Amino acid sequence: MLVAILGGGQLGRMLALAGYPLGLSFRVLDPSPEACAGQVAPLVVGDYDDPGALARLVEGAAVLTYEFENVPVEAARAVGERVPVLPPPAALEVGQDRLAEKALFTELGIPTPRFLPVDGPEDLRRALAEIGPPVVLKTRRLGYDGKGQVVVRGSEAVEEAFARVGAVPCIAESYVDFARELSVLAVRGRDGSVLAYPLVENRHREGILRVSLAPAPGVTPALQARAEGYACAVMERLGYVGVLAIELFECQGELLGNELAPRVHNSGHWTIEGAETSQFENHLRAICGLPLGSTEPVGVSAMVNVIGRHVDPAAVLAVPGAHLHDYGKAARPGRKLGHVTVRADRLEVLLERLERMRALVEGG
Amino acid sequence: MLVAILGGGQLGRMLALAGYPLGLSFRVLDPSPEACAGQVAPLVVGDYDDPGALARLVEGAAVLTYEFENVPVEAARAVGERVPVLPPPAALEVGQDRLAEKALFTELGIPTPRFLPVDGPEDLRRALAEIGPPVVLKTRRLGYDGKGQVVVRGSEAVEEAFARVGAVPCIAESYVDFARELSVLAVRGRDGSVLAYPLVENRHREGILRVSLAPAPGVTPALQARAEGYACAVMERLGYVGVLAIELFECQGELLGNELAPRVHNSGHWTIEGAETSQFENHLRAICGLPLGSTEPVGVSAMVNVIGRHVDPAAVLAVPGAHLHDYGKAARPGRKLGHVTVRADRLEVLLERLERMRALVEGG
Repeated sequence: MLVAILGGGQLGRMLALAGYPLGLSFRVLDPSPEACAGQVAPLVVGDYDDPGALARLVEGAAVLTYEFENVPVEAARAVGERVPVLPPPAALEVGQDRLAEKALFTELGIPTPRFLPVDGPEDLRRALAEIGPPVVLKTRRLGYDGKGQVVVRGSEAVEEAFARVGAVPCIAESYVDFARELSVLAVRGRDGSVLAYPLVENRHREGILRVSLAPAPGVTPALQARAEGYACAVMERLGYVGVLAIELFECQGELLGNELAPRVHNSGHWTIEGAETSQFENHLRAICGLPLGSTEPVGVSAMVNVIGRHVDPAAVLAVPGAHLHDYGKAARPGRKLGHVTVRADRLEVLLERLERMRALVEGG
Repeated sequence: MLVAILGGGQLGRMLALAGYPLGLSFRVLDPSPEACAGQVAPLVVGDYDDPGALARLVEGAAVLTYEFENVPVEAARAVGERVPVLPPPAALEVGQDRLAEKALFTELGIPTPRFLPVDGPEDLRRALAEIGPPVVLKTRRLGYDGKGQVVVRGSEAVEEAFARVGAVPCIAESYVDFARELSVLAVRGRDGSVLAYPLVENRHREGILRVSLAPAPGVTPALQARAEGYACAVMERLGYVGVLAIELFECQGELLGNELAPRVHNSGHWTIEGAETSQFENHLRAICGLPLGSTEPVGVSAMVNVIGRHVDPAAVLAVPGAHLHDYGKAARPGRKLGHVTVRADRLEVLLERLERMRALVEGG
């Protein structure tokens, strides 16, 4: 069974590596001939909305999926006439627009930071007044890894702030003084069955995910159940099939929906070694109509992103329980080049190993 | 770093899949254009002793390894002048000859069934007299999966038996009424460090491995240590680097060396999910000079070979803790098409799941 993937980055690469043992084959589409998934699967080079490239991508494919959310929705819909597109394009549409995301969360009873749409400096001034400063101004589209965001502390700054994010349609949100960032990853099969991974604790710096801890320490069953309920609600509403990630703020015992990703997610990379079934395999099982695999954790795991410069594999692999994932990409500042997952049986051992690993990955 | 692999079967395929996350790339050589590793790595089609094909295989490679032991030793030695060949060709030489294997075991103090070389019916008659019937007559070379073996019960059968194995140089061994078959897998790094996996219990039928249980139930620390000692002795003697497997008979509390495989081994496939580091990753870590990964088990595992006809992925994956490995091969009687590893936290749960899996894989 051939699976076509829009996007040839590390997520596509890890999907292919997880899928070969299931007997699947892959073809990926990426605008760059250097796309790293092309090292492990046939690569079609072309734009995501190039009809010819899309036709080559899906020829003979049983299903089309995507590894990032900024695929042109119209292109996904058009290709959907030839081959099932999963997750469904409706999820892409929501995932591309922070306002649509927040509106969906609100509609489904999922708490969020207060938010208002902002289409110009006047709207931003009004949002500051209604929500109270500081607010976070975010572009509705194409924001990721902290790009397209600015904190606005007073109405004197609205013109500059709106200009800084590019004077495009935005959303203003209350600045949440959260205790920590969590994410929930869940998977829904073609038959509607749903499984969720344990909540993950995520640590960002400069807007980029640096470390994930899984299962997130100190999560009560009630909190886990609430997060799973949110994921279920979103997936059912969207007729979702595949892995979905929702980033959440934990704030005074509450979970606030921040954003969703209609795909496998960086905060789920730990599942390759740290869960019975990886997010990549479960995404494929779901979209191929196979039974879902257990999402139970296997011990405790920490994932450290390798960003901007490569690590020394020998140093990393000398840490007990360490598993290296090199994406086969050239180094460039701020670029995700790989990740390392450290696994242990007990949290205190894990945290010790994590400190060693962070020193190796982030240190001089 | 490019790793060249002699042989493009499932072992080469699983090596490549395990190695991409380490940042390695691969090229495989196989006489068949259909070789299944060719689905996940560039394939050079050619004979193992074709100098041109070997040159293309190793061009730019940092190391050459092999996925089966019947590579022509001379070809391996010749190519060894251009690129390191690991495990060393000396291990190939021993692994290709049952007499050399047994002689090495004996020399290193590893018990074996009684054995004698047999070069004709007369030798076989003498062996029957000295060892006592029944004896197992095995070809010295090219035997695998029970091929090239015959049990000889009396001297009236010697002519026919010798003819049946092809009238080639043989070894006659005492027929061992063993309690069970075990295997030890160990890995030795370029720096001489050694780690061993827990002993595995193997169940064969018609000479083909059907099921492995790992860790083998009821193994005492003393028995484990003895097996590890045997593996260490062999590896040190051969200047070995990589994963080595030794098949053993457990017999009245003793371990008898049966045969060795200078490569990753079918009885180690469970390590993909059932150990902290898989045999495939550890083989690559070793030959690439990287630190070895932990060989600790993660729960308990059972591996079931898929032989001759494909399984229904949906049925297999519905069993909790099941992990499918389809090799991407066409079905043919007796052919290894894939394997399924079932993992659990407790042996009794595992055995229950194993029964379900065997019914699916072997049943109607």
